[in-house]
Amino acid sequence: MASIKPSVPKGTRDFSPTEMVKRNFIFDTIKSVFRKYGYQQIETPSMENLTTLTGKYGDEGDKLIFKVLNSGDFWDAAQAKKLKDETFEYNTKRLTPIISEKALRYDLTVPFARYVVMHQNEITFPFKRFQVQPVWRADRPQKGRYREFYQCDADVVGSDSLLNEAEFVLIYDEALTKLGLKDFTIKINNRKILSGIAEIIDKSDNIIDLTVAIDKLDKIGLDGVIKELMERGFTAADIEKIKPVILLQGSNTEKLASLRNALESSAIGLKGCEEIETVLNYIENCPLQTGILELDITLARGLNYYTGAIFEVKTNEVAMGSIGGGGRYDDLTGMFGLKGLTGVGISFGADRIYDVMDELNLFPAAANQSTQLLICCFDKDGETFSLPVLQNLRKQNINVELYPAGAKLKKQLDYANNKNIPFTIIIGSDEIESGLLTLKNMQTGVQEKCTASEIIGILNKYSICYLIKKSDR
Amino acid sequence: MASIKPSVPKGTRDFSPTEMVKRNFIFDTIKSVFRKYGYQQIETPSMENLTTLTGKYGDEGDKLIFKVLNSGDFWDAAQAKKLKDETFEYNTKRLTPIISEKALRYDLTVPFARYVVMHQNEITFPFKRFQVQPVWRADRPQKGRYREFYQCDADVVGSDSLLNEAEFVLIYDEALTKLGLKDFTIKINNRKILSGIAEIIDKSDNIIDLTVAIDKLDKIGLDGVIKELMERGFTAADIEKIKPVILLQGSNTEKLASLRNALESSAIGLKGCEEIETVLNYIENCPLQTGILELDITLARGLNYYTGAIFEVKTNEVAMGSIGGGGRYDDLTGMFGLKGLTGVGISFGADRIYDVMDELNLFPAAANQSTQLLICCFDKDGETFSLPVLQNLRKQNINVELYPAGAKLKKQLDYANNKNIPFTIIIGSDEIESGLLTLKNMQTGVQEKCTASEIIGILNKYSICYLIKKSDR
Repeated sequence: MASIKPSVPKGTRDFSPTEMVKRNFIFDTIKSVFRKYGYQQIETPSMENLTTLTGKYGDEGDKLIFKVLNSGDFWDAAQAKKLKDETFEYNTKRLTPIISEKALRYDLTVPFARYVVMHQNEITFPFKRFQVQPVWRADRPQKGRYREFYQCDADVVGSDSLLNEAEFVLIYDEALTKLGLKDFTIKINNRKILSGIAEIIDKSDNIIDLTVAIDKLDKIGLDGVIKELMERGFTAADIEKIKPVILLQGSNTEKLASLRNALESSAIGLKGCEEIETVLNYIENCPLQTGILELDITLARGLNYYTGAIFEVKTNEVAMGSIGGGGRYDDLTGMFGLKGLTGVGISFGADRIYDVMDELNLFPAAANQSTQLLICCFDKDGETFSLPVLQNLRKQNINVELYPAGAKLKKQLDYANNKNIPFTIIIGSDEIESGLLTLKNMQTGVQEKCTASEIIGILNKYSICYLIKKSDR
Repeated sequence: MASIKPSVPKGTRDFSPTEMVKRNFIFDTIKSVFRKYGYQQIETPSMENLTTLTGKYGDEGDKLIFKVLNSGDFWDAAQAKKLKDETFEYNTKRLTPIISEKALRYDLTVPFARYVVMHQNEITFPFKRFQVQPVWRADRPQKGRYREFYQCDADVVGSDSLLNEAEFVLIYDEALTKLGLKDFTIKINNRKILSGIAEIIDKSDNIIDLTVAIDKLDKIGLDGVIKELMERGFTAADIEKIKPVILLQGSNTEKLASLRNALESSAIGLKGCEEIETVLNYIENCPLQTGILELDITLARGLNYYTGAIFEVKTNEVAMGSIGGGGRYDDLTGMFGLKGLTGVGISFGADRIYDVMDELNLFPAAANQSTQLLICCFDKDGETFSLPVLQNLRKQNINVELYPAGAKLKKQLDYANNKNIPFTIIIGSDEIESGLLTLKNMQTGVQEKCTASEIIGILNKYSICYLIKKSDR
């Protein structure tokens, strides 16, 4: 067989060791915060039954689901023939269900709902779970959009307390602070406020049109929004009535006061204000470390299924879409027959957070994930001398490698430099005779003679300095 | 839409929080040992081009590859029609290439080879990589065999030093010791010894028949092996000559001496002996902590592509197949056009290790992955009082939850028990007045009044005891 130049499917990526260290830093940080707030990890299979996924993401979403071909003889010839006899010719839409019954996970929310329903008798509610796994979408690949990417979700089901909403604000704040972000905004809104706005102009049925238009305020300004609202059938009187709401100004408290005024005739609108106020009060008792919490009534993401709080997080340091989002949905598991379970959840956009951190140079040197010391030797004698040294250092939990005997020293030092190994020891005949080792700091070039136990001290000190620097954040 | 009882595809699994803690313990332990030995993590996409995978696993393997249906209109109607005109009717084998061009990863070795060839200019050789990711196989599901399961592989390419083989023995020993296994055997063999055995009876072409038969010694005994060898065309004289080799007895050194005698006429056989001896000498300089290293010439796994060392690990505490294996292959990347790169690698069977550890009750209490403390309160006042306490404890990196106000105490304590939360604080009016908290140890039932900072001390002490217990292993 002629060998072909290998490649990966478009929209998918390899992750090199350097990238993995950075990605692990993000995932480990987010997971540790989820755990600190009492969230427990689950995992679900990469493949779900097609029936579990179909119809949950709208027509556009359904098209983007990667379907897995049945294994073996993927179609039943008789069934295929029957299909053909009915329709004269095969077509892809009718063929799909007979050649595929499984598909790749499209998000983590639907599999989570399926999980909750399947395992409802083992679960203690409220159930606080987090999940960090890849999802697949047959989207057109473009910069920052991939066909395989990780989602990091935390959700709680079975509790309607707004303490959960407040804790998600705290989780965003703590995780992003730990990752080193210095200026970000956690936007919050409530679906009930949007319903209230539609209600006061008697356009409850047109809430989608309304929110799609005002969602664009940032991009097209007030005049643009008004123009779009007119095109979508709203009257000048409608617009006059909701203009003060769209142009809400001031602190969160001031915005809330104006909103209460404007929505005084809408019970649902006032309920939304009350919910927002409760969350704001919680946060007043537990001030955020870094993030700014901002009530933003133009926020409408995922309106189709959110019923209460809506979240979105943006960094103010780099031009970038949202790096997180979520909200409350009152009937997550209804699609699988378990009614009345309310849930609220958030998601971190790990790929975008990666790009932000890379641009701002926020990744720490990853001392504890990489090799800390390379032992270089020249010949079999050096190798034999080095082996017990190597294993003693490893017993002290130091990540250390011995370069196999026989390579030139330059090659060995290049290896250390390419792998960013901070220290080397070179074992020559002097070292073998004296038992004293020469430790070289590869960044400063400084060399010092020391015993094996002194080396342990120096390396541990180096790691601790790194850890202190890291926990400084 | 009528709701259907949800399920997962056969051969796939959900992992609950309890299972995830255990799985993470296994993966984290293995990864930390890989890192300690200088291995760096990479990840490759779940989907590979079908051309990358096809033809690499034999005909049987090819059938077990999960193929992904092309997205959108998955077949080109003109192409499909042309195919039909040629063959009168569609058949699955001919259809597959026009409806699918991607497939799910079948193992980690072929994607690794593809990675090395694609990134050869960025990689510093020797390249020591590890990879822990799921793979998918359309195998018939049965006990202990799944259609989605994780592999944990470490490989080094670009170094022919037998130090690598010795280090893999040390990695197996260290990782399995850390996981708490107390009695396991690391079996080692060398393909060159098997070639030597075939050579001394002049049956080099029948090496597969030979090894398939002697591989069964454990199961069918010497008489069974002889019977099978006769059936496969070996003569009585052949069998007389290789009998002493099959029945090799004594220590590794004694076995090696007997082998050298038996294989003295085979250059390749003697080379195999020399390689084994070198590995044994390395290990003599770095004694194993727990494992027993055993030369076992009946070991032949993966013979098709191994060219040097062959490894297999078995626990002696539980009846179970191998929990690890690997070997050296001289031309891993040749299939993608990069010749002459030698590699050696091992794999841990995480699912089987999980079953062994579960049976032997080796999983530690996972204090640092779960909630350590639940704060219970009765009403909004209690909640308000608790919030700053909660956040202060979290600042000390304690995993802590506040149960939202409004639930009965019994429900809250049940929640703590079901989640295995070791401590609770109950905030009533007394506590709010005095500021003194009552900490309850949920295992012993002991309660003590203490301040918030004393609680931090107790919880940290509890965690440290846990960590010490863990590092005792």
